[in-house]
Amino acid sequence: MNFSSDNAWGAHPAVLAALTACNDGAVMAYGADAVTARAEAVFRELLQAPQAVLRFVATGTAANALALSQIAPPYGRIYCHEDAHIETSECGAPEFFSAGAKLITLPGDAGKLTPETLAAAIRSGESEGLNGGRNAAVSITNATEWGTVYSVGEVAALAAITHKAGLPLHLDGARFANAVASRGASAAQMSWQVGVDALCFGGTKNGAMAAEAVVFFDPARAEGFDYRRKQSGHVFSKQRFLAAQMLALASDGLWLDLAAQANARAARLAEGVLAAGGSLMVPRQSNAVFARIPVELHRKAQAAGVIYHLWPDPCPGGDDMVALRLVTAWNTPDEDVLRFCALLAQG
Amino acid sequence: MNFSSDNAWGAHPAVLAALTACNDGAVMAYGADAVTARAEAVFRELLQAPQAVLRFVATGTAANALALSQIAPPYGRIYCHEDAHIETSECGAPEFFSAGAKLITLPGDAGKLTPETLAAAIRSGESEGLNGGRNAAVSITNATEWGTVYSVGEVAALAAITHKAGLPLHLDGARFANAVASRGASAAQMSWQVGVDALCFGGTKNGAMAAEAVVFFDPARAEGFDYRRKQSGHVFSKQRFLAAQMLALASDGLWLDLAAQANARAARLAEGVLAAGGSLMVPRQSNAVFARIPVELHRKAQAAGVIYHLWPDPCPGGDDMVALRLVTAWNTPDEDVLRFCALLAQG
Amino acid sequence: MNFSSDNAWGAHPAVLAALTACNDGAVMAYGADAVTARAEAVFRELLQAPQAVLRFVATGTAANALALSQIAPPYGRIYCHEDAHIETSECGAPEFFSAGAKLITLPGDAGKLTPETLAAAIRSGESEGLNGGRNAAVSITNATEWGTVYSVGEVAALAAITHKAGLPLHLDGARFANAVASRGASAAQMSWQVGVDALCFGGTKNGAMAAEAVVFFDPARAEGFDYRRKQSGHVFSKQRFLAAQMLALASDGLWLDLAAQANARAARLAEGVLAAGGSLMVPRQSNAVFARIPVELHRKAQAAGVIYHLWPDPCPGGDDMVALRLVTAWNTPDEDVLRFCALLAQG
Amino acid sequence: MNFSSDNAWGAHPAVLAALTACNDGAVMAYGADAVTARAEAVFRELLQAPQAVLRFVATGTAANALALSQIAPPYGRIYCHEDAHIETSECGAPEFFSAGAKLITLPGDAGKLTPETLAAAIRSGESEGLNGGRNAAVSITNATEWGTVYSVGEVAALAAITHKAGLPLHLDGARFANAVASRGASAAQMSWQVGVDALCFGGTKNGAMAAEAVVFFDPARAEGFDYRRKQSGHVFSKQRFLAAQMLALASDGLWLDLAAQANARAARLAEGVLAAGGSLMVPRQSNAVFARIPVELHRKAQAAGVIYHLWPDPCPGGDDMVALRLVTAWNTPDEDVLRFCALLAQG
Repeated sequence: MNFSSDNAWGAHPAVLAALTACNDGAVMAYGADAVTARAEAVFRELLQAPQAVLRFVATGTAANALALSQIAPPYGRIYCHEDAHIETSECGAPEFFSAGAKLITLPGDAGKLTPETLAAAIRSGESEGLNGGRNAAVSITNATEWGTVYSVGEVAALAAITHKAGLPLHLDGARFANAVASRGASAAQMSWQVGVDALCFGGTKNGAMAAEAVVFFDPARAEGFDYRRKQSGHVFSKQRFLAAQMLALASDGLWLDLAAQANARAARLAEGVLAAGGSLMVPRQSNAVFARIPVELHRKAQAAGVIYHLWPDPCPGGDDMVALRLVTAWNTPDEDVLRFCALLAQG
Repeated sequence: MNFSSDNAWGAHPAVLAALTACNDGAVMAYGADAVTARAEAVFRELLQAPQAVLRFVATGTAANALALSQIAPPYGRIYCHEDAHIETSECGAPEFFSAGAKLITLPGDAGKLTPETLAAAIRSGESEGLNGGRNAAVSITNATEWGTVYSVGEVAALAAITHKAGLPLHLDGARFANAVASRGASAAQMSWQVGVDALCFGGTKNGAMAAEAVVFFDPARAEGFDYRRKQSGHVFSKQRFLAAQMLALASDGLWLDLAAQANARAARLAEGVLAAGGSLMVPRQSNAVFARIPVELHRKAQAAGVIYHLWPDPCPGGDDMVALRLVTAWNTPDEDVLRFCALLAQG
Repeated sequence: MNFSSDNAWGAHPAVLAALTACNDGAVMAYGADAVTARAEAVFRELLQAPQAVLRFVATGTAANALALSQIAPPYGRIYCHEDAHIETSECGAPEFFSAGAKLITLPGDAGKLTPETLAAAIRSGESEGLNGGRNAAVSITNATEWGTVYSVGEVAALAAITHKAGLPLHLDGARFANAVASRGASAAQMSWQVGVDALCFGGTKNGAMAAEAVVFFDPARAEGFDYRRKQSGHVFSKQRFLAAQMLALASDGLWLDLAAQANARAARLAEGVLAAGGSLMVPRQSNAVFARIPVELHRKAQAAGVIYHLWPDPCPGGDDMVALRLVTAWNTPDEDVLRFCALLAQG
Repeated sequence: MNFSSDNAWGAHPAVLAALTACNDGAVMAYGADAVTARAEAVFRELLQAPQAVLRFVATGTAANALALSQIAPPYGRIYCHEDAHIETSECGAPEFFSAGAKLITLPGDAGKLTPETLAAAIRSGESEGLNGGRNAAVSITNATEWGTVYSVGEVAALAAITHKAGLPLHLDGARFANAVASRGASAAQMSWQVGVDALCFGGTKNGAMAAEAVVFFDPARAEGFDYRRKQSGHVFSKQRFLAAQMLALASDGLWLDLAAQANARAARLAEGVLAAGGSLMVPRQSNAVFARIPVELHRKAQAAGVIYHLWPDPCPGGDDMVALRLVTAWNTPDEDVLRFCALLAQG
């Protein structure tokens, strides 16, 4: 029973099959191959964005940091949630790739920025003069680090504020598929149609081995991006193997099916928590559940070998409770979910 | 008939099989898994270097730039051959990762640094004061960008000069397997036993999909390296998939067999060139052949669909000749080699 | 009546005289001159730190960012107060100079870090693994951005926590002279004797034209620092002109006299505020006063041409009040102080 | 007798007087003062460039590196002469400020780039694809590091090639005044009128204490430049003291007079060398003389306390000769020049 992360799990068989399928023969290296071209085209279709520039890299940190360094200068201010992955979990990658940009972190319930907080922060940044650096970009995560999902309208509202200030909006979509599946909107509706300018579309947590797409909906924003990718060591010589993974996910809606499966497993976990008298720290909207359970129950789960992160740790509001994060993948075994729910129910 | 590069070809079946073999179940992410631990251990054995710190990344540019940024400060001078991959083909990655280090390029026949040239350059650097930056490291490539191979003694001689100046020696081993196979020495004899401090052991060109090992033989040199790797987006969340590739290559001497196969194909190509009255620009010692042939023959080859790079272009010494680089992989078809030789023979 | 900043004022006549005094003749450039050697020696004496490595630069931002990049790697976490100048007012210089380090900002009354908050933050950073980067340094400002002054004991307590975690302590001393003058302790007691490892000793706000000293009390920490200074363009070719300014300040205790004069003027302003029924937002301890006055009084002051910053803006706790920052220099005219106090008194 | 460098000498009395003249009273910090505004305006007039954006910094390395980082991305290729100051004497500042740009160094007689060499190099860079980075800028130095001076026509020819490739032209004018004085053309004719896009106009070697101007003739190129300057610690809080120096130089043609004086002294030195049977390595055109004299004469000069650099060292073409660089300033004493010439004449 491993609920530690969706990236604890392997790749979908279709992804592995795609690697083998494209393995034969010699092709031009560094992305000048047919698989890469096809994968880019398919993703542009999936996003209904024929003009978009789209590139594949292997990690989410690379995707985010490359995208941000493309839209923010070294002296830029990038607004994000205080729990954003780019702030808490990328070891300073945005600062390094951009050669100095600052992340300006903002509070917000359940991992979400609010229009009011964002607007106030942007205004404050505008008054900084040289001292505080220059407003450069806004970054949101969807699904968020708390497993919640911005609605189409919520993204639109943040985008409106961002654009009004003349800034681009970046979306860290490490779990974009889970967000799309959760909201029942299209990928386009969840991104460029409501103002997302740069999208990191996650493949790894969705069922790839190691693959993400960086998307710039306005090609002008991608100017020089290939050089950045190369200079940071993120162009594969056998680039087809990155593309093939993403192509497999895009085929026949696999990406959305896998996300829906992961979300459904999390939904069952959330029900189990509630049924057992536990509580949710935030609403369960994608493939992560943030639950609060008694510490004894936690010890029982540990003893049974259940793996998850305590998050936040310590648990806000009480010594006899623990907060835990449960994350599901498309292939988290149903029986693991059921066993854990049963364990919770036993109290 | 594609002789453009060894990275034009796919992965060895054993590599792909290894991906599938490690796919099942959930493991801890970011390298805290058993496959990664085992692959690191196996490579330390292969290198007879039980103390070494060893990490896997996906690209050669990442491996080199990370290794160099680890051993050179922003104000460092890194000595290398003027045709070194780090100078000509990595889009400024060493400069970017190190935040400013300078590559000081040196001439040398057949892609090799000579002890005299290196010693003189280091001395010159020592006299620079603040103006020129501080001597930081020496980097060599083996097999070189010209397909030649430093002997054990040659590496030892360069290492002696490097160490006498108090500097570490980096070896770009994108084709280290080909070098080892060519010289018939061990990987240890070709690296730390003669003074290599940081080795980038290439897997991709050897038959992996996308995998390289960065090795620091003195663990003290690796201090903080994991953070650099993370900050630059080169830690995979599903790190086992990087490790599994390298593990497959290391098993049963596969890496050396594949390199020997590639080298043998290149040897046949070189014979074909000479038999047809062409000449070699440098001795053929690994899996690359630098040949000079009449321009008519080149046109004929083009017409027949043979793919290779003109290198150098234009060809030194004559308008009616072209210089071409032919690179073989372990799986370059024998019949392609034969057909091309036959084509050359027809004149 | 200009109370906007101590750097709104010019240089002390002794500083200007020192420039002229060292102007004649030719000396070796880039700091290899007698004035520089003497100024470094005098400052080591002033600090009772014969081993210290000491270098002069022209701006406080350069001093801080160079010092921090010397002690923190690109993936480092630097702990500081949320109102620290390095966070709010240096346009991302620490991030740029270090090529990626993160400032981890902490709350604290009156611009001061508390031992408890710092210890908790350091512990939290230690548990980050690769995700959050590595604990690298702690930075405090004395006098603080709120004009308050850490006592010798307070610095010692923060240093103890910092060192216990194996980290170095940086002190942004843009107004170090004011702090020393305020506490009546020696410069040594306020720095290395209680654990400061890297000190930026401000000259500009103290009466120089543009000069600061960066001090590393352990010479080993300064290794390579001269290269950083050069690479960032902060070595003057006519370096004597930087040194001469600092030498003038160090002579006959001028630095301390000037700081005491500035502090005394601020004390009188604070009295004026209180006498007029205004309040202080934090205790007045150096040459800055943070006052709260009715908005009408503010309008009157504006009308009278008094210059200061609204800080913080908006004023916490009430629409009919404004918060203002009043900063004095050694040469803020007494009559300006008196006139402003009189203006306040009129209500 | 010190001919080591023009920056071995102090500042012109008018420069020092200007510091004192602007010292009184309080002004807004960070460049929002009247002296700065006036100095910028005067320099725009001097350059006949009313649209230009012009900023003052304290060092030539800062000026060059800031200008280059403004016009070249991290993955940029910057073409320059192999003896360019930015390559040999700035400790990697261009690489650091740009976060990775590469200097592509080119040969050329007497410190000058030729149109043919530059055009070929740019073409070669264009064919690099991602590997070699992207062509970003061309940088020339005038007067050159060999004391020679590009003519108006020579600059125009290089600018034409640069612009044809869509690149901006940077001019390192640490000794721009000497170049202008040498050619008898105007500053405009030597810069923007023949295609210079970014000019670093040196004040320090011309008689300032520490001041340079960075000029962007097209304001669009200066976009965000103030932030770069701030982030790198090159905005003085008491910015008027930078501006005042430059203003003094610009007044009444002082800059040109001083340069002419320095050039004239060098001319006399060159005559002395030739009269004594020595030879010039390159024509004397500004305030530097590169001479070749017998080693015995060199020893005699050393014994007499004459200070200069051996340059290049060792001297090309003969063990019994030394090459030396003699640099004069506006205030190199006439008698020193005469004494040295006499010393040479004695043989």
